[in-house]
Amino acid sequence: MPSIDVCFSPELLHLYDLKGKAVVAVDILRATSTMVTAFAEGAANIFPVMELEECRGFSERGCLTAAERNGIKAEGFDLGNSPFGYMGGHVQGRDIAITTTNGTRAIRLSEAAEEIVVGSFLNLQTVADHLAELGLDVLVVCAGWKGQFNLEDTLFAGALVERLQDSFSSENDSALAAVYLYQTAKADMVAFLRQSSHVRRLEHLEIHKDIEFCLRHDVYNVLPVWRHDRLVDLRVEELER
Amino acid sequence: MPSIDVCFSPELLHLYDLKGKAVVAVDILRATSTMVTAFAEGAANIFPVMELEECRGFSERGCLTAAERNGIKAEGFDLGNSPFGYMGGHVQGRDIAITTTNGTRAIRLSEAAEEIVVGSFLNLQTVADHLAELGLDVLVVCAGWKGQFNLEDTLFAGALVERLQDSFSSENDSALAAVYLYQTAKADMVAFLRQSSHVRRLEHLEIHKDIEFCLRHDVYNVLPVWRHDRLVDLRVEELER
Repeated sequence: MPSIDVCFSPELLHLYDLKGKAVVAVDILRATSTMVTAFAEGAANIFPVMELEECRGFSERGCLTAAERNGIKAEGFDLGNSPFGYMGGHVQGRDIAITTTNGTRAIRLSEAAEEIVVGSFLNLQTVADHLAELGLDVLVVCAGWKGQFNLEDTLFAGALVERLQDSFSSENDSALAAVYLYQTAKADMVAFLRQSSHVRRLEHLEIHKDIEFCLRHDVYNVLPVWRHDRLVDLRVEELER
Repeated sequence: MPSIDVCFSPELLHLYDLKGKAVVAVDILRATSTMVTAFAEGAANIFPVMELEECRGFSERGCLTAAERNGIKAEGFDLGNSPFGYMGGHVQGRDIAITTTNGTRAIRLSEAAEEIVVGSFLNLQTVADHLAELGLDVLVVCAGWKGQFNLEDTLFAGALVERLQDSFSSENDSALAAVYLYQTAKADMVAFLRQSSHVRRLEHLEIHKDIEFCLRHDVYNVLPVWRHDRLVDLRVEELER
């Protein structure tokens, strides 16, 4: 039986051997939720990059550019980090270069893995089904907040472990903690997270609507995976074959 | 109101500013539980050191030496890492040099703090009272297991946050998670921890009796604090004044 483990911060990634594993990169508020939404809205490719300047350069290649720093949209970019900014048809068929405080980092630091999947509550079941098909050991890599543990990514990890509990072993301490926290929180995740000073900081940025949306389960059948230098939606690829 | 925060691993310590803070170093299974027991049994000073060879050298200074690696007593030392090994009177008045896999590291990496207290369930209330008196911001530093998150240190952090909730703010995500996990686990912590592969690995070393003992709350009125190059029992110091 394959195993599922949880890494609470990119700062702990060096303690894990990623070789031959499937990584699920997660940054619920809001990078990975937004990427999933972008694909659901028809985006072609997403290029997650680390630096603002590198991201800006992608506009010369015909890409839309998206940037967030410390929770707000960076100046001079086409898009921010709110999933609602990607709705309405304007990303259909477009390539997007995106850089965010935490989420991009979790993806790019996981490149040694056999497969990198982008996870969010919005595409939870699609991710779970894909991992069950793959049958590889799984590591959920939480983006955290500036390297520190955060609750919302941990709750996603717990939800995923719960969905996979019949076909994956999860006896390591971080996976057990994530499941217990998810079971405590899931009846009202918005209220649960409102205790968090980090989430309240985000709410001050008036993204309460984003937070509610990013906690909705199984909204999209979208499967963003890392291929060479970009994220593609594997479901679309399969349909086009 | 001062704050209490939790650092889940020494590998995350560089993200925190320790200056002016009180650190509670914790390695429930078993380094800090054992140190507390040693002081309760009358040990004079404890020298936590990082390396086996350095530890061995302390025997020339008249110290008892104690060493654990990967859960078992290292060869050629007077004592191991089981609290029961320190009972019966033979550590009374003695100095002890001790090196363990995780616990020593948590203490030594926290030296930038204003105060370092050694915490365990055994001296939980004594530690809580001291922190309330000090009134400094608190960071609980979990030793973890080889750098990774572990449940037992997190449960202690949650217990301490709960005891201090009226006089300290604790809105950061790791403190919230620790409290929820403690509230889930506290009715039967032994059963809760038995799901953990890490704890089961320790049980294979036949330390089940140690585990039960190390989870007992408020057994000793002992307050080990870091002074220059050693731990001393502040309660004894105060009584001797």
